[in-house]
Amino acid sequence: MKELAIGIDIGGTNTQFGFVDREGNIVSTGKVSTQTHEDIKLYFKDLYEGISSLQERLGDKYSVVGVGVGAPNGNFYKGTVEHAPNLRWKGIIHFVDEFKQFWDVPTVLTNDANAAAIGEMMYGGARKMKDFIEITLGTGLGSGFVVNGQLVYGNDGFAGELGHTVVNPYGRICGCGRRGCLETYASATGIKRTVYKFLADITEPSELRGVSFDNLSAKMITEAAERGDRVALEAFEYTGRVLGQKLADAVAITSPEAIFLFGGLALSGDYIFEPTKRNMEENMLNIFKDKVKLLPSELQNDNAAVLGASALVWKELDKVSKTKIKL
Amino acid sequence: MKELAIGIDIGGTNTQFGFVDREGNIVSTGKVSTQTHEDIKLYFKDLYEGISSLQERLGDKYSVVGVGVGAPNGNFYKGTVEHAPNLRWKGIIHFVDEFKQFWDVPTVLTNDANAAAIGEMMYGGARKMKDFIEITLGTGLGSGFVVNGQLVYGNDGFAGELGHTVVNPYGRICGCGRRGCLETYASATGIKRTVYKFLADITEPSELRGVSFDNLSAKMITEAAERGDRVALEAFEYTGRVLGQKLADAVAITSPEAIFLFGGLALSGDYIFEPTKRNMEENMLNIFKDKVKLLPSELQNDNAAVLGASALVWKELDKVSKTKIKL
Repeated sequence: MKELAIGIDIGGTNTQFGFVDREGNIVSTGKVSTQTHEDIKLYFKDLYEGISSLQERLGDKYSVVGVGVGAPNGNFYKGTVEHAPNLRWKGIIHFVDEFKQFWDVPTVLTNDANAAAIGEMMYGGARKMKDFIEITLGTGLGSGFVVNGQLVYGNDGFAGELGHTVVNPYGRICGCGRRGCLETYASATGIKRTVYKFLADITEPSELRGVSFDNLSAKMITEAAERGDRVALEAFEYTGRVLGQKLADAVAITSPEAIFLFGGLALSGDYIFEPTKRNMEENMLNIFKDKVKLLPSELQNDNAAVLGASALVWKELDKVSKTKIKL
Repeated sequence: MKELAIGIDIGGTNTQFGFVDREGNIVSTGKVSTQTHEDIKLYFKDLYEGISSLQERLGDKYSVVGVGVGAPNGNFYKGTVEHAPNLRWKGIIHFVDEFKQFWDVPTVLTNDANAAAIGEMMYGGARKMKDFIEITLGTGLGSGFVVNGQLVYGNDGFAGELGHTVVNPYGRICGCGRRGCLETYASATGIKRTVYKFLADITEPSELRGVSFDNLSAKMITEAAERGDRVALEAFEYTGRVLGQKLADAVAITSPEAIFLFGGLALSGDYIFEPTKRNMEENMLNIFKDKVKLLPSELQNDNAAVLGASALVWKELDKVSKTKIKL
């Protein structure tokens, strides 16, 4: 009987899940809506039924060893999702406890960027690395720090909030209630804000002048840059400058072998990598210069989040077999 | 026969050493000059002779299990001291290799702030902690990050350079050749620079107007503050603001249980702790607020550096006994 882990990725719109083997092959996937479920009990019921029906179709030749969950503001130690700004459910959701009422299998949860980091370590570009940083550039900026081959959870399970280190204490208002956080500049939303800043500040013609803030996407900015649009190009330069400066700071703290960029904005390729790398090197303390690789994530983007969440299960099982800690 | 570790702390002026037992009792100490030895071979000879003569006096009832060295810009993996601005020897010093030519005992080296962190973990306030940050406030600002009970060395052995994360890219010139590094504000030298900034910026009378930059010390600034000197008090407020902001950033990355302040400036007590703590909390991401302790180091200051360096030996011996890695 082949062992499988279930990976669940909770997004603001949908929750995706998949059955994944230890080698990272995704056997089967499904999804349920996150957004339309105001009643969390109904959400858990739907999620469980979605997973069960998938499992039934898989039949007897597979057994499920555990469930890994990646969630915004997920807490590894407590199995909770706490005050996630992009989810409908407010306050603290005891995800693991709730889920176990439906299905009592070993279940482990962490935030989505940490799940991506573990996925990178097991199946992506960090397979042979012990020290690296995973940066997810989506609606916000998430990060997972790996040190000595272990994910950094910190004392309370919330470590890795590079997106909420401060670029400028008088800068842009952040969803967290403060100002000038890195993610207000370096994320899909951040670069949109930067485009709008440049549309206001300079007079250069730009195809982006015809697009509303709501309709603007990182992909459209990339496409405009490909066509030589000055505002789009300047926005990438600015984003890379801010991100590069803060990555140089992060390097000074954990001295990683590599930094991986993952998620929507990372798909912009050289437009984001070139200015980020250049500014990172320019701002780096001497002893770290030309040592740290800046790489695109090697996780396939469509199912990357599910893959990362499932990787959490194997990672914990490996810990158990090494240290006899109960999953 | 009682087992002892030798701790060596390399400072710009003197190199101090001591024989320390596993419980942290310092049995015997000595020192040699660092500064007067232009020829490094002679320095090693003197250091070895100093240690040997101490060992002879201790007699047969002790055995030495290893040597731990704390050094500026020390590299744990390579046993080197690299481009240390405050030492006479330029370039890369292969300290461990050189020292072993005199005495072939297990020898391990790291930077001085990392050594202080390990000392704090074995003998100080971090005895029961798995996640904390040690900040040394001396001529510069050093830091040692402990995660999951392990010191963070990073991929190249140079992790933990919080002092060289950037407060303001257009700010004060730093000894590292860049601008605006945290240590140009938050260190014994940093607060001196701040006092001089305020002496220039404001017209308030101050007893510090009679002191030259070279003669000014952190201790004098503390004493002036105790007498209600406005410039001294403002300098502490400013230092605490900058340090508190950057500690909030560090918390967002590793989420420690506590941050320890060690070294000269930390002895200023509430003058430095109160504004630092207040600004740290004000700048903290919501999920971390009121969780992280800011504490004075519990290492006795006179021999703290030697104690920390010796702790490195026991720490490595413990690793060896757990994982069979050769010291």
